[in-house]
Amino acid sequence: MSAEKTIFRTEWFSIKEIPSKPIWGMGRKPFYRVDSSDAVVALLLTENNKMILVRQFRPARNQKTLEFPAGFMEPGETPEQAILRELKEETGYVPGDLVELGSFGLSVDRNSHSIIGFVALDSKKVDTPKDEKFIQLVECNVGEFMTMAESGEPILLSDIGFFALARQKMGKRLGLD
Amino acid sequence: MSAEKTIFRTEWFSIKEIPSKPIWGMGRKPFYRVDSSDAVVALLLTENNKMILVRQFRPARNQKTLEFPAGFMEPGETPEQAILRELKEETGYVPGDLVELGSFGLSVDRNSHSIIGFVALDSKKVDTPKDEKFIQLVECNVGEFMTMAESGEPILLSDIGFFALARQKMGKRLGLD
Repeated sequence: MSAEKTIFRTEWFSIKEIPSKPIWGMGRKPFYRVDSSDAVVALLLTENNKMILVRQFRPARNQKTLEFPAGFMEPGETPEQAILRELKEETGYVPGDLVELGSFGLSVDRNSHSIIGFVALDSKKVDTPKDEKFIQLVECNVGEFMTMAESGEPILLSDIGFFALARQKMGKRLGLD
Repeated sequence: MSAEKTIFRTEWFSIKEIPSKPIWGMGRKPFYRVDSSDAVVALLLTENNKMILVRQFRPARNQKTLEFPAGFMEPGETPEQAILRELKEETGYVPGDLVELGSFGLSVDRNSHSIIGFVALDSKKVDTPKDEKFIQLVECNVGEFMTMAESGEPILLSDIGFFALARQKMGKRLGLD
């Protein structure tokens, strides 16, 4: 029997209050978990092996960030369907090949959802981004991404981590050692 | 004048409801932001250049993760004071040198808080971890961390990203190219 209680809900996420278990080592106060649908993210590479990043305003941070295309899954979608939809909407690109690299936690202190990561290879631009007014595409050489990250661009640590993992797992296909 | 409203609050975070601005491209529904204190994280290296990671159970994910030592700042603390406290509590280590590498967003779709990242070098074990019953320390060679990440250990993308950034910025001091 679960003693979880939903105590707050929006269209995008809900908050559960959960009695803490002694074995968690978190004391006796209740624990609050943030639940949402899972997310997807892609390292997007064009036919010419350029990386495509999206620059967009993030109200939660009150700043523009530079991110890998990503988004939340919609009901009934598989992760593959979700990333193909997000890539199309955010960038107008369709991958020639899509490789799933795994499922990961983000901000795991409070958040239950996973993010499923893909490498999208040989991608072709077939359309303009749906959100063209709000999203700016930024192209970069694969070999220059870490230099850009180092330069202080507001790139997410989780995207840098996904890049490093993709490089470790399939560097040759990314055109890296 | 701000039209933000706090509509939910726990001891650790609060949720603000904010009217969406047309320029955000998010439609007309309100936006929900999760606010908390900022966090700190460290790539912890011993005097023998071993990395120290913490394995702990994460109720939000219902699994054990393998993470860099990290935690939220307490009122009145500087980021440096917070990371020294967290390192002491979680691992029992005190750094010989502490280098700040920057401030980053995490899960920026909803979360306003930043995480400030440090590299803790030449660290000495001076104590047992305070939460010894709930935290297991894992030692690894710096050169083997990416292999461990690739192997499927539940390591956070944000920690992998911070490692890649530290390597890019100060690889030699980490004993890497």
